[in-house]
Amino acid sequence: MEAQATKRSIKGGEFLIRETSAEEIFIPAEFTEEQKMMAQATKDFIDKEIQPVRDKIEKQEGTIVPDLMTKAGELGLLGVSIPEEYGGLGMNFNTSMLIADVIGETGSFSTTYGAHTGIGTLPILYYGTEEQKKKYLPLISSGEWKSCYCLTEPDAGSDANSGKTKATLSSDGKHYLINGQKMWISNAGFADLFIVFAKIDDDKKLTAFIVEKTFGGITMNDEEVKLGIKGSSTRQVFFNDCKVPVENMLSDRENGFKIAVNILNIGRIKLGAGVLGGCKEVVNYAVTYANERKQFNTAIANFGAIKHKLAEMAIQTWITESASYRAGQNIDDCIADLIADGMEDGQAKLKSFEQFSIECAIIKIIGSEALDYVVDQGVQIYGGMGFSEDAPMARAYRDARITRIYEGTNEINRMLMVGMILKRAMKGELNIMEPAMAVAKELTSVPSFDMPDLSKPFAEEKEVLKRLKKAVLMVAGKAAQTFGPAFETEQEIMMNIADMMIQIYAAESAVLRAEKLVSIGGADAHKLPTNVAKVYLYEAAEKINKAGKDAIASFTKGDEQKVMMMGLKRFTKSNPVNVKELRREIADHLISKNKYAL
Amino acid sequence: MEAQATKRSIKGGEFLIRETSAEEIFIPAEFTEEQKMMAQATKDFIDKEIQPVRDKIEKQEGTIVPDLMTKAGELGLLGVSIPEEYGGLGMNFNTSMLIADVIGETGSFSTTYGAHTGIGTLPILYYGTEEQKKKYLPLISSGEWKSCYCLTEPDAGSDANSGKTKATLSSDGKHYLINGQKMWISNAGFADLFIVFAKIDDDKKLTAFIVEKTFGGITMNDEEVKLGIKGSSTRQVFFNDCKVPVENMLSDRENGFKIAVNILNIGRIKLGAGVLGGCKEVVNYAVTYANERKQFNTAIANFGAIKHKLAEMAIQTWITESASYRAGQNIDDCIADLIADGMEDGQAKLKSFEQFSIECAIIKIIGSEALDYVVDQGVQIYGGMGFSEDAPMARAYRDARITRIYEGTNEINRMLMVGMILKRAMKGELNIMEPAMAVAKELTSVPSFDMPDLSKPFAEEKEVLKRLKKAVLMVAGKAAQTFGPAFETEQEIMMNIADMMIQIYAAESAVLRAEKLVSIGGADAHKLPTNVAKVYLYEAAEKINKAGKDAIASFTKGDEQKVMMMGLKRFTKSNPVNVKELRREIADHLISKNKYAL
Ligand SMILES: Cc1cc2nc3c(=O)[nH]c(=O)nc-3n(C[C@H](O)[C@H](O)[C@H](O)COP(=O)(O)OP(=O)(O)OC[C@H]3O[C@@H](n4cnc5c(N)ncnc54)[C@H](O)[C@@H]3O)c2cc1C
Ligand SMILES: Cc1cc2nc3c(=O)[nH]c(=O)nc-3n(C[C@H](O)[C@H](O)[C@H](O)COP(=O)(O)OP(=O)(O)OC[C@H]3O[C@@H](n4cnc5c(N)ncnc54)[C@H](O)[C@@H]3O)c2cc1C
Repeated sequence: MEAQATKRSIKGGEFLIRETSAEEIFIPAEFTEEQKMMAQATKDFIDKEIQPVRDKIEKQEGTIVPDLMTKAGELGLLGVSIPEEYGGLGMNFNTSMLIADVIGETGSFSTTYGAHTGIGTLPILYYGTEEQKKKYLPLISSGEWKSCYCLTEPDAGSDANSGKTKATLSSDGKHYLINGQKMWISNAGFADLFIVFAKIDDDKKLTAFIVEKTFGGITMNDEEVKLGIKGSSTRQVFFNDCKVPVENMLSDRENGFKIAVNILNIGRIKLGAGVLGGCKEVVNYAVTYANERKQFNTAIANFGAIKHKLAEMAIQTWITESASYRAGQNIDDCIADLIADGMEDGQAKLKSFEQFSIECAIIKIIGSEALDYVVDQGVQIYGGMGFSEDAPMARAYRDARITRIYEGTNEINRMLMVGMILKRAMKGELNIMEPAMAVAKELTSVPSFDMPDLSKPFAEEKEVLKRLKKAVLMVAGKAAQTFGPAFETEQEIMMNIADMMIQIYAAESAVLRAEKLVSIGGADAHKLPTNVAKVYLYEAAEKINKAGKDAIASFTKGDEQKVMMMGLKRFTKSNPVNVKELRREIADHLISKNKYAL
Repeated sequence: MEAQATKRSIKGGEFLIRETSAEEIFIPAEFTEEQKMMAQATKDFIDKEIQPVRDKIEKQEGTIVPDLMTKAGELGLLGVSIPEEYGGLGMNFNTSMLIADVIGETGSFSTTYGAHTGIGTLPILYYGTEEQKKKYLPLISSGEWKSCYCLTEPDAGSDANSGKTKATLSSDGKHYLINGQKMWISNAGFADLFIVFAKIDDDKKLTAFIVEKTFGGITMNDEEVKLGIKGSSTRQVFFNDCKVPVENMLSDRENGFKIAVNILNIGRIKLGAGVLGGCKEVVNYAVTYANERKQFNTAIANFGAIKHKLAEMAIQTWITESASYRAGQNIDDCIADLIADGMEDGQAKLKSFEQFSIECAIIKIIGSEALDYVVDQGVQIYGGMGFSEDAPMARAYRDARITRIYEGTNEINRMLMVGMILKRAMKGELNIMEPAMAVAKELTSVPSFDMPDLSKPFAEEKEVLKRLKKAVLMVAGKAAQTFGPAFETEQEIMMNIADMMIQIYAAESAVLRAEKLVSIGGADAHKLPTNVAKVYLYEAAEKINKAGKDAIASFTKGDEQKVMMMGLKRFTKSNPVNVKELRREIADHLISKNKYAL
């Protein structure tokens, strides 16, 4: 039996079958002074060092990018997650999320930073031997060395484990010789350290290696010419008899794919936080522009069509924020529990990320899609100027597009989510089957006319959420039962179910955050978060209804279909919400503050 | 009384209250041999002259762009709409749509072409005196002269009539001196002819002028650095005492805004056709890539998630095509009717475009949003390669983004649509009020249980359409009644209603096209168009329901709201459609043909 986080902490994936209370979730208002100071220091670094030279970064002028990384290292920004004993700050996971959030506004640089501190650092931190950690982490943490992560190959992208790069033991048994080609490697242009995945001999699975640039045999192509994040180095990397000492194997032979997958979990949730800085910056620009730009004798901010956009941009941002930090704290709690249970630190962290892999995928998807929406509307609000590279929106638009592609495409993440929830259900790790069966039973029984007590704040919203979860359980349960292992070939339906789950998590995070805020500061002080939660929940119910309908229509027939459609209608019902008014109130607030102010 | 097209032809905006039969609409299968030959000649020109030098065009190398325009002129492509007496081919409007469609695949060049042949030509063609036409049209038609259209100013974009450019009569009364600054002028870099909008003295409204480059006093800034369509020249243009002979005023004093608006109608519908070439090219690339790219030991085209995308890309393209040529022919018919009634050719054309201004706006919106969807999914199917400027998707993605901004932003077009339909209703030009009142009455009466005869092909779909129209009439009627002239300040609700109208027009165009195809060639031969129509109608009903709900929730209360919500539910009900299966069939066909083949 593997250790499970069963103490105070919530289980990953459990949100689908569990009623979570507002007290149980972490909200950004709860960041400590220390965390806020760290965020401020990061923001100062950005304002002083990054923003003034963004155009130069975009051109990758000289050594500007690695130099900035060195500076970030001097400030401690590269060691947020690294324990103090290895030269880092040893802060908890949600702090590293907060830093990723703040750095998000730097676009290209945010990818550089993320590749170094995430996929370029964590494999060593979590899987390295004590010697490896001692040797490399201080160098990475200080920024003396820049690191990168070489997993993808020309023929192995989403299917990362199919990579052809080979490692063969030298005749003296002292080195592995690595041969092969890697592609799309962020930071490759200036990296001193390469985490490389290769197959030893005829292994089926990958093994990871820590490779120093100076080991030799490493060459690379020119910089890729990309749509966006042009300031981030991306290259093809070739290994030609690159000589890696055997002690630089990372973790066990054939454990590489597992490492890759676990590290990607972390990358995914951090991407959710990482888009926030970008979203907020774009909202700031958009509000300011809308306030300044006059047409028809008035600021365009006064037009309802523009208010709708501004409000929705802020809503998407706020939702991503709510979900990201909620899950981030769940992970920190889980880590703490496991450590309290006696588990070793690195092991506890890995277990916790694995435990929340569904949430990590959800947040990657929410975040990347929120960013895409925000930049798209940002361009539109700028009108013709949105199409000019001399204004800020064009770059934001180009930069954003990568987030739905890397750290696992959003299609892969959607499929993973559904696959994982079903796997856990099968394994009995998550008791999904029982509630799913209860819902199935409810379908054919007389609906209960018990009126829940709706007098408490958000009681109605939480009732809606409860029912929405039933909708997901109904569809997912039926699909799992109908298809069994062949479910894999029904990706369209998996996508529908993924969409439903995503909406549940996002909407619940918003409702609980608003509820918690109101419970602390009162309804009047938190009218806008309440608006956000209400509008989002209404939209989520609609989306869940639509995804459910698509799914049901695509794999059921006759009476069964009718019954499920009726159930869906019942479960996704929500009261009309004056979305126009609620959005206007949100927009008016942003407009009066002339920035993202939620 | 103004002349009305009341003969054979259908009225603009009437689709909302009229049951149109399949025989009444034009479908692309009906293009004549002559039209097809013209399209083929255009395609040959593109394949031979444009595609091989696209990278050079993107860099605007030397005089490559104007040179290509000259070549296009030699082939007659710049004079498709110009009568033979002025050196053109004198073909009907739908032929010019077809040519725009084919040229669409050239991205930047398509904008250059569109600016010259559309906004740069038509003001003279439709509003010029005989002398002006004789003097300029042959030069424009042959490509000897390149033309551009100077309406937008730094402070006058959507609000074009607020332009500050001035025209003052010289003391000898022989010239107007034009002074002012224009912005975002396509083709400015090499134009010989400028259609310039300016205000004479203290006029409230614009006047149009035909300005030759050689008149002097014209300077310009460098090329704008744009997100996309980089191969299309876009510049700021300055007029400094530019001396325009009085005979070069176009049409009457203060008639400029009217010209601008009418010409934009044409630009809008042609944009719908103009995106088609781009959509089809991107679908071609995407299908080919999906067939070639292997992950998890299989071509990614075999994944349901990818099939969904490919099918939906094709659906969006096909829908845009259906709507564009349907409306194009309506316009041609209207022109023919008016001419038969004795109206002068140019006048008849103008009247007809004005008559179909609602459809023009709809098609601009459908087309630009279809293109954006298509390129976005194209990028996604390419995965990491979608983000590379060395693959075709990145450019397509950048180029597409302009279409929601120019020719009137999509927000402006949505508002215009609704404004126009209400105006026509008020004026009694369109009998919307009566059916709207009938629907309002139906809301409170017992629903009819008469079963319509659903035995004929598409009878069910047409019943759904009929009901969907009721949903729009219900919401629009109630909103108009509630707000009266203050409706303008309720843009969010106008947007909802616009969305509903758009979906009606698009879905009806699809259903009627499929029906006509089936009636000609049989159901078996046209299974896929039938699938497209069914999937689209299903989605349209969902969207109409959602937009209706948003609107109703935002301006009604209590019992009235309840009744309307129930009505909406009844009117937007549609039977479940196995969207997964229908889309798979569409995708499988594209995949087997390895291209857009609908
Ligand atoms: C700018 C940039 C930076 C990057 N940085 C790094 C880095 O530092 N290190 C690194 O190792 N990699 C990096 N990558 C690679 C990135 O992780 C991959 O591009 C990504 O995983 C997608 O793989 P792919 O490009 O091969 O696309 P493919 O896997 O070929 O996917 C193509 C399409 O098929 C879909 N698809 C694939 N498999 C399935 C399936 N089973 N079911 C349904 N749909 C499927 C995808 O969703 C996508 O739509 C980077 C990429 C870019 C563009
Ligand atoms: C590449 C390119 C080529 C162009 N070519 C030409 C050309 O050849 N000739 C020419 O004359 N012009 C041209 N234009 C200008 C183009 O037509 C304008 O950019 C467009 O009309 C929008 O005007 P704007 O940029 O001033 O945006 P704005 O009008 O400032 O709009 C900004 C935002 O406000 C919204 N908005 C504005 N008014 C309202 C309202 N009343 N209610 C609600 N929302 C509103 C808009 O929808 C938009 O989202 C071109 C532009 C570009 C980018």
